[in-house]
Amino acid sequence: MSKAYLDRGVSPTKDDVHSAIEKVDAGVFPGAFCKLVPDLGGDADYASVLHADGAGTKSLVAYLDYRENDRADAFEGIAQDSTVMNVDDLVCVGITDSFLLSNTIGRNAHRIDARVLEAIISGYERFAERMRPYGIDIVTAGGETADVGDLVQTVIVDSTVYARVARADVVDCSHIRAGDAIVAFASYGRARYEDAENSGMGSNGLTAARHVMLHADYGKRYPETFSNTIEASHVYGGPHHLEDPMPDSSLTVGQALLSPTRTYAPIVREVLEKHRDAVHGLIHCTGGGQAKCLSFGRDVRYVKRELLPVPPLFRAIAETGAVDTREMFQVFNMGSRLEVYCAPAAADAIAEVARRYGVEARVVGEVLPTTRAGKNELVITHEGRELEFGR
Amino acid sequence: MSKAYLDRGVSPTKDDVHSAIEKVDAGVFPGAFCKLVPDLGGDADYASVLHADGAGTKSLVAYLDYRENDRADAFEGIAQDSTVMNVDDLVCVGITDSFLLSNTIGRNAHRIDARVLEAIISGYERFAERMRPYGIDIVTAGGETADVGDLVQTVIVDSTVYARVARADVVDCSHIRAGDAIVAFASYGRARYEDAENSGMGSNGLTAARHVMLHADYGKRYPETFSNTIEASHVYGGPHHLEDPMPDSSLTVGQALLSPTRTYAPIVREVLEKHRDAVHGLIHCTGGGQAKCLSFGRDVRYVKRELLPVPPLFRAIAETGAVDTREMFQVFNMGSRLEVYCAPAAADAIAEVARRYGVEARVVGEVLPTTRAGKNELVITHEGRELEFGR
Repeated sequence: MSKAYLDRGVSPTKDDVHSAIEKVDAGVFPGAFCKLVPDLGGDADYASVLHADGAGTKSLVAYLDYRENDRADAFEGIAQDSTVMNVDDLVCVGITDSFLLSNTIGRNAHRIDARVLEAIISGYERFAERMRPYGIDIVTAGGETADVGDLVQTVIVDSTVYARVARADVVDCSHIRAGDAIVAFASYGRARYEDAENSGMGSNGLTAARHVMLHADYGKRYPETFSNTIEASHVYGGPHHLEDPMPDSSLTVGQALLSPTRTYAPIVREVLEKHRDAVHGLIHCTGGGQAKCLSFGRDVRYVKRELLPVPPLFRAIAETGAVDTREMFQVFNMGSRLEVYCAPAAADAIAEVARRYGVEARVVGEVLPTTRAGKNELVITHEGRELEFGR
Repeated sequence: MSKAYLDRGVSPTKDDVHSAIEKVDAGVFPGAFCKLVPDLGGDADYASVLHADGAGTKSLVAYLDYRENDRADAFEGIAQDSTVMNVDDLVCVGITDSFLLSNTIGRNAHRIDARVLEAIISGYERFAERMRPYGIDIVTAGGETADVGDLVQTVIVDSTVYARVARADVVDCSHIRAGDAIVAFASYGRARYEDAENSGMGSNGLTAARHVMLHADYGKRYPETFSNTIEASHVYGGPHHLEDPMPDSSLTVGQALLSPTRTYAPIVREVLEKHRDAVHGLIHCTGGGQAKCLSFGRDVRYVKRELLPVPPLFRAIAETGAVDTREMFQVFNMGSRLEVYCAPAAADAIAEVARRYGVEARVVGEVLPTTRAGKNELVITHEGRELEFGR
């Protein structure tokens, strides 16, 4: 692993986290993308899921924008980030209808005022409204704003989502098998349900992305936006200011970094309505990036030969930070944040559903048997080179 | 409000938070202690609640203990804090049987290692096990550990709890009325289901408590445990080290500050089984302390004439920090973290339930009509003085 990431106190593989939770029960569908537990109402035909995630350090880009330009509305997108990081994980177990969302904000009240809180809270409500016409009901159940300035230097924006699902409807990644096609949905461009170009950025990798892309000015002016455990040479070492144009894009660098995490819920909802039987697994490529799939399925070799094009932001991060290509694929989605593992006969029709929502999609590879029993493998073909990953 | 609290970036009244959420729908029981929403399963006889809270800055006391003494197990109690801050809020709407808990840890991976994560995660499991014999089923649904060192200097420990409740069983604080007795359950001592003396400390007020009680040595050695937005004179200005004995207590100062938040769930469960019809409201005295009640009920005057004795830790915080008495009652529970508002005829029997669990309890006051229409009032008699609070 290159120093670009680990030296900033972020572990893309989270090995120590996995070791800390390995004794915890894996739930009723141990191979599924999220932990499912028995239904709290006691209905044996249903399972429940209570899932936590957040916007991570993306809130710091909004904070810089807020402080530099006195605009709190950058935080509205952070609420979308926090929601989608959860909802799209649940989409991957086949839940696309009803979600109950609770939000947790931890702030330093000396730096984060009511305007920011209002922007975040209204951001949750607006994203929920935007999804309603697509049959996706996100109910905001309240939340907690904690004044924890001794813990949080600026603001952390997390949420937790509850949902229930008929066990017969659960998409369980343990059904991914040799012979499956891999259909990838683009993270970039502009979906029918979005109102601006999306850079493809989700809500992971923002620690590396910020420090690689943004100028040392920000570190000097806002020392509250980085940990003093990071070696000085890794802090805000980039050439860019937020308002710089991003090459090959209609966005500025700031807009590209802040681009709200795209949801795939409307698309997956329709895919499951029309092609449920053909879908064997759904993977949300967040932390772990294009290598996320390695944690799912059994004794398979994931072959991704023709990934969607890498969008400008990720190319810029790789070039500007001289970040190793392998690491880029392990940290960032690199152009696709949702993958459908399916029967090959249905693959083109599934891609077509996404394209009707304005989201580029295609078959990017296939699943083969592993070459090493007991281990999953992944090979990505990128610019003519084969990159091997395994665990 | 005294400078002891506000100057450390913590608002006990959270006025700006209330203004930020005032447009958000209040749910199906707007006067209840927690927001209840329609049941996700669509059962009109039930309501759901998804509730978020956490251990707040109490994790910093565990962090100091961990760094000074190389013991990660202090973090086990932090998981109990995070759980009880949620569960006992839900107890106040009448839910005492089944809870689904998801945990969120945000850490700086340079400072917080797998040992700490393991202690926190096993802390959640152990507290759930401890509650099971009392008919309280806390199912751990998984969680998220985020490496967010640029946001969180050490570690933040939050959780979110989902539960459902028959609408007919909801305890709704809007039923608190003039004529009710106030029964208070002690936060100190040792309950039958605890294995050590409890100082009475919950998981709020720890920013003030730490800085007032603990010695400047900690600020010098662990600058990562306070915000640089706090004026230097308010940082770790106390006389104590963690291992100092707490007067009138079997605990050290460190143990007293870290004393895990007591749950009242086993007691309230039995109270509701035996005296449901007499219970009009339940208040969890967390942020807001003894003045928390002001936010509930309508046109009432809360009269607390004979509160339980103030335990040693809160006396020490008041004396050491020269904290104003009014502020102490608005920030800390001061000896009781759960109040039952009930028909006077049942009050003694309700107190007796708590005493059978080893928790001191008694009638501490009553509810009168307000003297100012449209406003609630509170008067606390303390050492012969009457302290008036209103909103």
